[in-house]
Amino acid sequence: MADIIIKNAYVLTMDPDLGDIENGVVVIENGLIKEVGRSTGSTADKIIDARGCVVMPGLINTHCHAGMTLFRGYADDMHLKEWLEDRIWPAEAKLTDDDIHIGSLLACLEMIRSGTTSFADMYIHMDRVAQAVKESGIRAALSYGMIDFGSKEKADAELKEGSRFVSQWNGKADGRITTMYGPHAPNTCSREFLIRVKEQAVKDKIRIHIHVLETEAELNYMKENFGMCSIHFLKDIDFWGTDVLAAHCVWLSDGDIKILAEYGVNISHNPVSNMKLASGIAPVAKLIASGANVCLGTDGCASNNNLDMFEEMKTAALLQKVGTMDPTALPARQVLEMATVNGAKALGIKSGVLKEGHNADMIIVDMRKPHLTPLHDVASQLVYAASGKDVRTTIVAGKVLMEDFMVTCLDEQDILGKAVQTSKNLASRIDS
Amino acid sequence: MADIIIKNAYVLTMDPDLGDIENGVVVIENGLIKEVGRSTGSTADKIIDARGCVVMPGLINTHCHAGMTLFRGYADDMHLKEWLEDRIWPAEAKLTDDDIHIGSLLACLEMIRSGTTSFADMYIHMDRVAQAVKESGIRAALSYGMIDFGSKEKADAELKEGSRFVSQWNGKADGRITTMYGPHAPNTCSREFLIRVKEQAVKDKIRIHIHVLETEAELNYMKENFGMCSIHFLKDIDFWGTDVLAAHCVWLSDGDIKILAEYGVNISHNPVSNMKLASGIAPVAKLIASGANVCLGTDGCASNNNLDMFEEMKTAALLQKVGTMDPTALPARQVLEMATVNGAKALGIKSGVLKEGHNADMIIVDMRKPHLTPLHDVASQLVYAASGKDVRTTIVAGKVLMEDFMVTCLDEQDILGKAVQTSKNLASRIDS
Ligand SMILES: [Zn+2]
Ligand SMILES: [Zn+2]
Repeated sequence: MADIIIKNAYVLTMDPDLGDIENGVVVIENGLIKEVGRSTGSTADKIIDARGCVVMPGLINTHCHAGMTLFRGYADDMHLKEWLEDRIWPAEAKLTDDDIHIGSLLACLEMIRSGTTSFADMYIHMDRVAQAVKESGIRAALSYGMIDFGSKEKADAELKEGSRFVSQWNGKADGRITTMYGPHAPNTCSREFLIRVKEQAVKDKIRIHIHVLETEAELNYMKENFGMCSIHFLKDIDFWGTDVLAAHCVWLSDGDIKILAEYGVNISHNPVSNMKLASGIAPVAKLIASGANVCLGTDGCASNNNLDMFEEMKTAALLQKVGTMDPTALPARQVLEMATVNGAKALGIKSGVLKEGHNADMIIVDMRKPHLTPLHDVASQLVYAASGKDVRTTIVAGKVLMEDFMVTCLDEQDILGKAVQTSKNLASRIDS
Repeated sequence: MADIIIKNAYVLTMDPDLGDIENGVVVIENGLIKEVGRSTGSTADKIIDARGCVVMPGLINTHCHAGMTLFRGYADDMHLKEWLEDRIWPAEAKLTDDDIHIGSLLACLEMIRSGTTSFADMYIHMDRVAQAVKESGIRAALSYGMIDFGSKEKADAELKEGSRFVSQWNGKADGRITTMYGPHAPNTCSREFLIRVKEQAVKDKIRIHIHVLETEAELNYMKENFGMCSIHFLKDIDFWGTDVLAAHCVWLSDGDIKILAEYGVNISHNPVSNMKLASGIAPVAKLIASGANVCLGTDGCASNNNLDMFEEMKTAALLQKVGTMDPTALPARQVLEMATVNGAKALGIKSGVLKEGHNADMIIVDMRKPHLTPLHDVASQLVYAASGKDVRTTIVAGKVLMEDFMVTCLDEQDILGKAVQTSKNLASRIDS
């Protein structure tokens, strides 16, 4: 007997062989997908009738800072330097373990509500992010964000903490938690430190999450200090590989794109954040054409200001079209791939596609709404018309985390109340 | 006795003198706002407790083609020429009066749900759009879209139909319907025709709604045929004035911006459509700096693909920031002005601000949601984190059209069913 059968659904498998199944079923057992097809002989404890809905792989947010959810709307419409130095860093310095726990629970809640089933995170106080992931039932690839600023002592301490986090949490929460090494960026970490991190990561068989060329300022800094851009600099120290998740990658030359594709680097595109902070337009269409694995991320709430991956999908498509002045750039299906299949590949998890043997990470999107009527093309509708608020049901590892718009895994009102209180306390600590 | 009192609300008046009122009341009587303040001595039949919510002016969508809602997702990711000539125009040729009626009801439903209380429309079969506006309770400035393609006979017929529509519908539905003349664009209407339309509009004291410089192709066409761009061409024929609503205005020189500002032209910025069709980035920050009245529009559903003005606000801010590489461009409050005050000015209606004597057109946005927590800054939250789905209650001319997420003015299920059937019938007619 299976655990869950979803029936009468439009199944968007995102698998090239299975394709879309118009009136299909998905069978879930022991946290995995047991069957996807037109009908099933199985029975299950729980039957979900998904008439009028699309069942699809849960979205994968490949670049987030969950704890920053407490800073939603805290500082907007500012120049990057002032935003970081006058507002964000002083605020981050006052964050406690408990703050990060509440901020991360709030982020998980928002992600579950808006159809994200996995996320990659890099931040501080990561034990409490991991705790929030464990409690919420979501899946995540977590990394402690390391910065050495060229100090050997700081480098030792940071790598020690990064390693401790990896060994303490990798594979925890029934395998829902994986870990990564998180060197912050090529302009905030020293060359020596990045070499050590890469060696440690290879030794531990652990992936790496890093910010790369988010801003022109980084590009200029690297050229001034190393005579080359971050992409060539990281190539020079044998950093690149399929084990690296590079966030942003806005300021790329055609030569850089070739390198990223050649090494199979995973690139997390964050269009909303890149627009809001005026970082620039990443050459996503070129990256995909070159064969690179491009996935999607929201970045933290301070630069977005939400975690809605549907919005991120639409923005990615729109920005690439206007950025290249080509309306055929990044069509809907390709954006859906970025948010599902490509994201799973970047995180090294068996999710992102509805197929036998894969993780039962999926969402049910309710299409019976005015703004989703009429329905000419499912992919177009999901990318250009839908939003995270149309997600009706969210399932991770075979567990229903939200059903019929009701969150079942967390106490929503309790978290909202605590988040309000926490951000008030935090604000008064920052002001004092 | 008043009709409605909204209390315990965060009142975002959008009035420079009143500002924001943190725990305020709004009193509604006879379709108008009777009082806005901290408290009231009035009593009313209906009291709305808006604790945890923001009350603000309803959003004003200044460029729409409501009937096109039937084409949502019908043709995406295509080049403009093929999109128009191979897909949209053949489909439009098959549209019947009844189709437009259903499509417009669907559009009104979506707009009411997502917090739009007024819209400007230009399309065909406009009697049935007007009928939908009348039935739904929304407010609209409607125009019959006129194209002469240089034929005198066609010009006569188009202007006759435009005038008939104006005289039949202006001021109808208790004043909720106003009308405009709708010459399509400078490159689809002849010089002579545009001159006649302007004369007629001035004579009738009726405003004009027109597409201007949406594409580089129009700019090139005008330069080739008239030796000048559309802005100078329209200046040349004394077309510009505060009575003109010009949609798009993407391809402007600094000199064009000066002209538009000087004549007090109302400019409807449509960022989602401009991005999706790869039309370009309108110089909105420059236009505003020059003193032009810039408002916001979604354009039709075929190029968006929804009518969510919250999404349009966020996209406008993001696009301007990345387009100018300045993260301080188009801050949240300015975008809110575009979507409210400026929109009302463009349509010549006494809405867009919560102030005594103005139309009681307002919305209540529920902020007690994970993606709207914590609340550091109301304007930021509305523009960068909220969406149309957070609108709880919509009031137009003092009538509650949606209350607590339930549409009260229209039979939602009936319209959805008919829209599905209508678009199926339409699709089979197009294919045959
Ligand atoms: Zn980041
Ligand atoms: Zn238009």
